[in-house]
Amino acid sequence: MYEDRIRYAALRDRIITADEAATLIKDGMTVGISGFTRAGDAKEVPLALAQRVKRTGEKVKINLWTGASVAEEVDRALTEAGCLARRLPYQSEKLLRDAINRGEVMYVDQHLSLTVEMVRDGQLGKLDVAVIEAVAITEDGNIIPSTSVGNSPTFVKMADKVIVELNIGQPAALEGMHDVFIPGDRPDREPIPILEVNDRIGTTYISVDPDKIAGVVITNKLDHFSAIAPVDEETEAIANHLLNFFEDEILAGRMDDKLRPLQSGIGSVANAVLSGLKKSRFKGLEMYSEVLQDSVFELIDAGTLRFASGCSITLSPARAQEVLDRIAEYRDAIVLRPQEISNSPGLVRRLGLIAMNTAIEVDIYGNVNSTHVMGTRMMNGIGGSGDFARNASVTIFVTKSTAKGGAISSIVPMASHVDHTEHDVDIIVTEQGLADLRGLAPRERAQVIIKNCAHPMYRDALMDYYQEAVTLGGHTPHVLDKALSWHSRYLKEGTMRLPVHELS
Amino acid sequence: MYEDRIRYAALRDRIITADEAATLIKDGMTVGISGFTRAGDAKEVPLALAQRVKRTGEKVKINLWTGASVAEEVDRALTEAGCLARRLPYQSEKLLRDAINRGEVMYVDQHLSLTVEMVRDGQLGKLDVAVIEAVAITEDGNIIPSTSVGNSPTFVKMADKVIVELNIGQPAALEGMHDVFIPGDRPDREPIPILEVNDRIGTTYISVDPDKIAGVVITNKLDHFSAIAPVDEETEAIANHLLNFFEDEILAGRMDDKLRPLQSGIGSVANAVLSGLKKSRFKGLEMYSEVLQDSVFELIDAGTLRFASGCSITLSPARAQEVLDRIAEYRDAIVLRPQEISNSPGLVRRLGLIAMNTAIEVDIYGNVNSTHVMGTRMMNGIGGSGDFARNASVTIFVTKSTAKGGAISSIVPMASHVDHTEHDVDIIVTEQGLADLRGLAPRERAQVIIKNCAHPMYRDALMDYYQEAVTLGGHTPHVLDKALSWHSRYLKEGTMRLPVHELS
Repeated sequence: MYEDRIRYAALRDRIITADEAATLIKDGMTVGISGFTRAGDAKEVPLALAQRVKRTGEKVKINLWTGASVAEEVDRALTEAGCLARRLPYQSEKLLRDAINRGEVMYVDQHLSLTVEMVRDGQLGKLDVAVIEAVAITEDGNIIPSTSVGNSPTFVKMADKVIVELNIGQPAALEGMHDVFIPGDRPDREPIPILEVNDRIGTTYISVDPDKIAGVVITNKLDHFSAIAPVDEETEAIANHLLNFFEDEILAGRMDDKLRPLQSGIGSVANAVLSGLKKSRFKGLEMYSEVLQDSVFELIDAGTLRFASGCSITLSPARAQEVLDRIAEYRDAIVLRPQEISNSPGLVRRLGLIAMNTAIEVDIYGNVNSTHVMGTRMMNGIGGSGDFARNASVTIFVTKSTAKGGAISSIVPMASHVDHTEHDVDIIVTEQGLADLRGLAPRERAQVIIKNCAHPMYRDALMDYYQEAVTLGGHTPHVLDKALSWHSRYLKEGTMRLPVHELS
Repeated sequence: MYEDRIRYAALRDRIITADEAATLIKDGMTVGISGFTRAGDAKEVPLALAQRVKRTGEKVKINLWTGASVAEEVDRALTEAGCLARRLPYQSEKLLRDAINRGEVMYVDQHLSLTVEMVRDGQLGKLDVAVIEAVAITEDGNIIPSTSVGNSPTFVKMADKVIVELNIGQPAALEGMHDVFIPGDRPDREPIPILEVNDRIGTTYISVDPDKIAGVVITNKLDHFSAIAPVDEETEAIANHLLNFFEDEILAGRMDDKLRPLQSGIGSVANAVLSGLKKSRFKGLEMYSEVLQDSVFELIDAGTLRFASGCSITLSPARAQEVLDRIAEYRDAIVLRPQEISNSPGLVRRLGLIAMNTAIEVDIYGNVNSTHVMGTRMMNGIGGSGDFARNASVTIFVTKSTAKGGAISSIVPMASHVDHTEHDVDIIVTEQGLADLRGLAPRERAQVIIKNCAHPMYRDALMDYYQEAVTLGGHTPHVLDKALSWHSRYLKEGTMRLPVHELS
């Protein structure tokens, strides 16, 4: 069954169970596993480790590095077993998030393009074991990754030992869709030779010295994708505002009908925005992004997208099987790259991307919080948004104007945590409208954000704050004693809305 | 006297006075002038405009674009005359700063590598007139810039009309030291072909259609540099902490004796840090930076620096004449590039720079404020720090631990404005010590920053804040009601220090 997927014969003798593989991971080790946005993650070995530790009660604390988020059950089981000392560069699992917010797991929230630079430079310490999901092992013993590339090429290069999870449930037809390239050492590194989004510059496999492969674990567990909320009235409105913006850019002569290559963050709003393109007149667009979600495949099917470069394929459970069954049909339309290439700041600049990412909150001056609820509690992480936002030709952040049934305004006087500074933010879109901040000073930005993007139930209060701040002066006026009062009020009263008597 | 500097004969007939040139600038126009950190700026034409407007009382409001800061008297005179509607991307003049903080001039504080991308994409509107200081005009009518390149190549390319300020006071020997390169249009742009800091990839002149040159103004006014505070005990301590850090990196095998190419921000602290290298054992280092200050030339003289790539030469009044008189001796040791090349995020990443910039304040989690005093009042601007900080291999921010004789702590509970997020900040250095934040979670960062970098008179209060915040939980713990209270206290009481009765 699996023999034809292990074409390097010697490795057929190194097949071990997940439990056996997990014994290679010792207390205090640093472990790097494949996986990006729950796609192509090593599943069985980390789970076997967690289960053993839970069963035996032994102490095994590891530093876990991934591409981005991995299967829920992996982060959950490792958290429950108390196995995680340190975790980077991204996660999105509820139990782990709670442990992070209690200070039990040291979480290092990184730009997704940056981790491997630090790993190769030795800035994060030594990598002991890499566990990498594969769909095949080549004649020379190299690894064909599955539904993501992530940080795996550098993990394999830098780890002392490599464990392969050969997943026979993942389509063999994924072979040939990857383009693996590790930039050279610095300071004499050559430029990344990608000129067009579909350029291939590397190999279809991850190079490895087969002697480093300590074992091959045969698995058959599908990626554990999460459901995507359907398009609703508000996300549809956001998509429409964006489409109008694109048309305006074309009218102004700043773009042609091909727009610029698109990048889109993950999640329901982002997915809905992309889906909005389906109903547009645009054809033959290009994408240079991290995650290829459901909507990307729909847009390719519809001819809206000509080509999509990404780092992982993350589908909804409803669409996963269908897309993966037909994955060979997308062979000429997609490529999967390491995340340092999909998110390369230099390439983002050179390609002049349109970057669309989701905000948790935005302040009246355009500073964006992507990570921390009420300034303190980590949600997921910054992900790749910083790689894209600073260097795109147009940087767009989208959010619904309110959350928690209106108790939270996504537009606030001062962001309670800043991931993207106003220097990096061109366009804000909510279901209320779009604020084009390009070339505007903070006082101008405040007025257009409040007017165009804030929910009507918060608009007057925001304008009151702004006007009081202006009386105190400054390039970016603030009333420091009140700047975070909306967040404090929410924490104390469950709503950011002012009591009626204060509205006067 | 000047004829040999205008080698394209037809332009000798287009010599006009500064007053005449200034009449080409009309109300409502956008004007781009040369100049970066007070070096190589157009001086006479903007001054003539300001003086005329002051004299006649006519209304001329312009949008002024520069490379970075320009001669004090230019920004001051234009501000006094009320000529500035909008100003970007950087300034450092007191009167202008006050006008910005009163909301009278709309100031757009930009990453210095980004302005020309937006200009070429048409995102900031049309450029009417470019005024460029030159040391010569070539046989073909092209422009040899003077002590900076800045944004001039793109300003010349995009402007309807070009005015040249031919400055015969600037050394003719500057010719040949520039390397002018404009990246291609996006999305099909080729990589910038620089592999080593000393690579030359462009022309020694700014290309221009001579028909676009509306006039040549002969000037003889030197760059108006500002004095640099001498090295003091605190800046020397900062430099020593950094040198120890470099030695530790070498010991850990993360760098060799050549370190990585250095970038250093402008200002007294940065200058002192660089000067500290003179006393070190390092030889043959490389620099890839924006501004070449006094210390750079001293380091070249001492053999510490092998080569320095920059965008401008900004000297102290005390050293300027001497260095400029000998500028030809530095011909093989320096190159001046456009700021989108000196600050290119892709190159910063590829070269793996060590980036050293100055902070106004840093919070206990490593977020950096580079621009706003007490969160509201603009000081100068972010400059190039964001171009470097996000992509360097080691990102360092330096600051003295206190300001205003101890009334202000540079380490605060929460940054009152964020220009550099904790994702981008590796190392914080004050005269107290150095905090290495690489691979640390926020709770770990807080402890090392407070312990190593805060001034002893603020250390306990910071730790009290942190510990109270931890009781409330969160990945990045904060007490929202108190997070900005240190700034509020300073505004009300003139000090961030707690009254004694609250210390208990």
